[in-house]
Amino acid sequence: MDPMTEQAMADIARERKNTSFSIQAMAEYVDGGKDLHNARKLAHNILKRDPQIAFETNPFDLTRAQWRWKTAQQVSRINEIRATLGKTDPLLADAISKAAGELSESLSMKMYVHDMLYHQSIQLFGTPAQIKEFIPKDPRIVGCFAMTELGHSSSLRDLETTATFDPKTNEWIITSPTLTSTKWWIGAAGQSATHTVLVSQTIVNTENHGLSWFIVPLRSLETGRLLPGVTCGDIGAKAGRHGLDNGWIQLTSVRIPLNNMLSKWMQVIPSLTQPPRVSPPPHPAVMYATLIPERISALTLLQVLVGQSVTIASRYGVVRRQGPGNPQIIDFQIQTVNTLPLVAGLYVYMNAERKIQGRWDRLRLEAVKNPSVYLEELPDIHSVSAGFKAVGTWWGSYALETCRRACGGHAYSAYNAIAGHIADWGVVTTGGGDNYTLIQQLARYVMGIIQKVLANKQVACIGSTAFLANTQQILKQQYTFPQDGFKDLHSYVTLFSSLVVKMGADLVSKFKETRKSNSTADVWNIYMVDLTKLGTIFVYQHLFSLYQGMSDLKNEAISPVLLKCGVLFAADVVRRELLDSVLEYECMTKGQVERLRETVYSGAKELRADVVGLTDAFGFPDFILKAPIGRYDGDIYRHYFETVKNAPDCFKTPYFEDEVKPLLKGRL
Amino acid sequence: MDPMTEQAMADIARERKNTSFSIQAMAEYVDGGKDLHNARKLAHNILKRDPQIAFETNPFDLTRAQWRWKTAQQVSRINEIRATLGKTDPLLADAISKAAGELSESLSMKMYVHDMLYHQSIQLFGTPAQIKEFIPKDPRIVGCFAMTELGHSSSLRDLETTATFDPKTNEWIITSPTLTSTKWWIGAAGQSATHTVLVSQTIVNTENHGLSWFIVPLRSLETGRLLPGVTCGDIGAKAGRHGLDNGWIQLTSVRIPLNNMLSKWMQVIPSLTQPPRVSPPPHPAVMYATLIPERISALTLLQVLVGQSVTIASRYGVVRRQGPGNPQIIDFQIQTVNTLPLVAGLYVYMNAERKIQGRWDRLRLEAVKNPSVYLEELPDIHSVSAGFKAVGTWWGSYALETCRRACGGHAYSAYNAIAGHIADWGVVTTGGGDNYTLIQQLARYVMGIIQKVLANKQVACIGSTAFLANTQQILKQQYTFPQDGFKDLHSYVTLFSSLVVKMGADLVSKFKETRKSNSTADVWNIYMVDLTKLGTIFVYQHLFSLYQGMSDLKNEAISPVLLKCGVLFAADVVRRELLDSVLEYECMTKGQVERLRETVYSGAKELRADVVGLTDAFGFPDFILKAPIGRYDGDIYRHYFETVKNAPDCFKTPYFEDEVKPLLKGRL
Repeated sequence: MDPMTEQAMADIARERKNTSFSIQAMAEYVDGGKDLHNARKLAHNILKRDPQIAFETNPFDLTRAQWRWKTAQQVSRINEIRATLGKTDPLLADAISKAAGELSESLSMKMYVHDMLYHQSIQLFGTPAQIKEFIPKDPRIVGCFAMTELGHSSSLRDLETTATFDPKTNEWIITSPTLTSTKWWIGAAGQSATHTVLVSQTIVNTENHGLSWFIVPLRSLETGRLLPGVTCGDIGAKAGRHGLDNGWIQLTSVRIPLNNMLSKWMQVIPSLTQPPRVSPPPHPAVMYATLIPERISALTLLQVLVGQSVTIASRYGVVRRQGPGNPQIIDFQIQTVNTLPLVAGLYVYMNAERKIQGRWDRLRLEAVKNPSVYLEELPDIHSVSAGFKAVGTWWGSYALETCRRACGGHAYSAYNAIAGHIADWGVVTTGGGDNYTLIQQLARYVMGIIQKVLANKQVACIGSTAFLANTQQILKQQYTFPQDGFKDLHSYVTLFSSLVVKMGADLVSKFKETRKSNSTADVWNIYMVDLTKLGTIFVYQHLFSLYQGMSDLKNEAISPVLLKCGVLFAADVVRRELLDSVLEYECMTKGQVERLRETVYSGAKELRADVVGLTDAFGFPDFILKAPIGRYDGDIYRHYFETVKNAPDCFKTPYFEDEVKPLLKGRL
Repeated sequence: MDPMTEQAMADIARERKNTSFSIQAMAEYVDGGKDLHNARKLAHNILKRDPQIAFETNPFDLTRAQWRWKTAQQVSRINEIRATLGKTDPLLADAISKAAGELSESLSMKMYVHDMLYHQSIQLFGTPAQIKEFIPKDPRIVGCFAMTELGHSSSLRDLETTATFDPKTNEWIITSPTLTSTKWWIGAAGQSATHTVLVSQTIVNTENHGLSWFIVPLRSLETGRLLPGVTCGDIGAKAGRHGLDNGWIQLTSVRIPLNNMLSKWMQVIPSLTQPPRVSPPPHPAVMYATLIPERISALTLLQVLVGQSVTIASRYGVVRRQGPGNPQIIDFQIQTVNTLPLVAGLYVYMNAERKIQGRWDRLRLEAVKNPSVYLEELPDIHSVSAGFKAVGTWWGSYALETCRRACGGHAYSAYNAIAGHIADWGVVTTGGGDNYTLIQQLARYVMGIIQKVLANKQVACIGSTAFLANTQQILKQQYTFPQDGFKDLHSYVTLFSSLVVKMGADLVSKFKETRKSNSTADVWNIYMVDLTKLGTIFVYQHLFSLYQGMSDLKNEAISPVLLKCGVLFAADVVRRELLDSVLEYECMTKGQVERLRETVYSGAKELRADVVGLTDAFGFPDFILKAPIGRYDGDIYRHYFETVKNAPDCFKTPYFEDEVKPLLKGRL
């Protein structure tokens, strides 16, 4: 065996052996318990052995057309498997869907637009009768979700698509009146969707009643051909997600029945004698509720994609040496300090994702059972999910790029997965709600509460904003980071609380002053960067509050290392992103800034010995990782070389006669 | 015309008209004078009209094999054009090469490995006789440059390839003894190179004399087939640069003549009676000199790739509105504050690239005429080029991602270029010298000088380190940023000088203390993150010193705006990257940190009105940009839509019967 291979394999085996905690216990924690852990392992094995799903060719050796086809094939096969093996075992059926999501981001999204976006829209916007009608139809259709337009995304109220009610026939006429109203980026609309839920301006009696949701058939169920009046096309080449047929949709006077408007919150009631009557929604936010699960799903994706990249980078860092006598590269301080906070951060976000997802799962049941509870909590979870999506996905970008750099040149090869994760991830910071917009949405919500508290107006500080009830009290104190607080998560939570309140209160008074000579929109714009910061710190406050309160910290097998993860990530966040605010509000002295840096360095070094265990516990098998340099067994070079040698055209120069020969005759 | 299109075109025309300076004057400055400007425009027109170069299909609609072929075709055609149209006009010939580099990064690199890396290696490492021999041969070969190995990159001294001298035949036997010694990532080795310069351990009389450079034939000039003992293959799928055939090389006892070792600095002198004698190089750095132009070229690439992305993002920011009544998105404060420092930064780096390139051009002539001058200045430019490559390319990554986000979802389409730039750029922070390694190389150089100055040892503070001659003086003063210095470039230069000296001196004493109980390598590792920071700040010191001294600031047509660019970028750099150091060394008060932030906000807002002019002056025509959303005329939506509609398979679902139909029969 190659000497470097031998050393690499011995290195990773030794690391694994020396892990300070039970990797098995941690893996079960990560998967949410023993049963779920076992179901996930079983699902992995089912997928791994299925040649239509875990196909032989590296996806980066496929053409776009082939990749789209293969992904469609995977969807089709996953459904067969769920319908057969998962039939009597819902835990397994669910695990298969999740495992499929780990296998390929294109596959994941192609399933997601139907399973989640299309479905949940009907659940959230449909009446009980409509849910009953449209969900049973579901097995016979492929659904997608049409919101964004070529000319509009962040400002939904300016969408141009119109649905005009025709009282003569009790139908809606759906139209894309301009080029810029073309629905754009719609996942699965490019080649495969037969139906879409579509958001549109709602015109009744020549009056625009705002946005509502419609079910529009797109393609024939028999032939797959576009229905009359419908033009859909594939969006072509993208940065990543090459297997997903994102598409565009133009509708030209397409007629659909009245009942195809989802009518839980807004109803149009026709009459034989009078003009139709419109009953408006109780709160505009209810009309955007599908955005909430969509945003929470960004945190799930963080675990999947960033989790895989961090696993690869950690293992590579452990097995890679620049020659046999040299150190493992992860032990270079800059690599330790870059990599370990990523591992820690994933555990911190994992907890938040569970808590917020759990809250939403409870809440969306209330939408049916108990609409007033639903309406009361909606603004908070709406804002929180927006903020977490923004801050979490920005961090994900940073994490992925850090992983790529940690692997040097070899992560530039498509065969080592990270490059593909970066490309797939690209859309996440701007799609599903542009991050700049989302973080301001949260800031607006937070500012609203602080404003009211300061004005002694009645305001319910529910959910994430509970700590804002103490605004007046926090404002009275000069907060200084406790001298012995660097290893205590609570200090960081208090720091974030204090910063949110102080920045918020400052902005409230700056707003007042500036409003004297500016419009409200201008005032907002003058402080937009500061407001972005406010929103970001609010997210950290909630992120670490949730982590501080996690019940799992009581599990002794894993709690010490989880606690270290929390402290390391909190210190890292302050050091990388918040020093300016910390110093502006004099929350730390010069000496403390040095201590903070030391906390990151020493915390990273301390967790370094557990890096293999912590990432093994994420539970991604090699066939999911698809990255020879991140192999479980450390045998990286041979497998990497084999992958390259097996790629098509490895030993061919088809253009030698045509293009190289002329050069050999003479150059300038 | 679509209403949003009409508005977009009017918006950009108005911006252009209202630019505060002469765009033509700035464009000539950017191109380095009127003659060069005209040559570039002519070169653009020649390329644009050539169907083999500016081919119709969008490159992202090609397969990898097609893209590799097309790029080879472009190289071949560019050479014909240079040999014909450029024959009597060296300015034009050069402009054609540069314009080709703007058109495609794959093309650029494929030309570069032969024209620059292969050529310059012979020039820098060859004797006059060898230069004469190998350069005239050049028109009959395609050269590449083999350094990196599968198992080694940053630690060159651990490379495993061996060249063993056989005194019986006066030949070298070149061998790749292990899998990990496989030369890896070698541009053009995959399919097209016929020769390589190759760095290898040099074994004479069974003793290893370190690295030297060899010319090794790889493929038959007649048939393109691999020569006996040579195994080369294509590296397959990468993140980007899909048209470039990066490859790998394994050599098995390949024999080449003695004279194929480039022998300017190190010679092997055979003898009939005695063992061969080895004359070692005067300084190890001379053996790595090709790395200098390679690193400077990263700054050129910054102008080309990041310049294009910033042009696209700026124009899109100006024409994009979320509906007709809404603001131009670039006027949202967060967009202004993100985008304008990028524009400014490009002008600042542009100046540095010229100065450093100019210095190297002078210096490499000295290598022949005046080796002692060459040897004296080599360590400085070696370290400076390393540091600039690291800091410049890190900034480039940040800039490209910021551009992508500034364009929202539409930059996720491959047809709008930025996604491709990000993918192409990916390799730059780790390839051509890993940035983490390079910045430490510079830090080591800087620390060496500061150590000597502090110990009152004789040291020549030449080139970039001139200011370190004042180390003792700077240390004596408590530096505080001048109250009225925020708009004065000089304040920032002084700030950077002061920080370098103070951090350096602190590290010198920390080193002394730590060395008592640690090895030298461990000491370095304990402070590696701090040393990275030291190197980074040193780069900024030099970057802004060079900008401050630029003679072009006397050109009144453009100097006011250029000066604003310098101040904005300096303030932005401190705000984004250096606040922790500024505060640790108490260089700014709390109030000044706020002023600094205000300087960035107001500076960005002030330059905002010139954003179209400043990016127009970069001089990238639409056929180079290949991004409908960055079109010169603002007519973005129609062209974007046409590109998508013309992509292959836009209206096809080839897998409907096989993969969609099964779904319509029933899902779980």
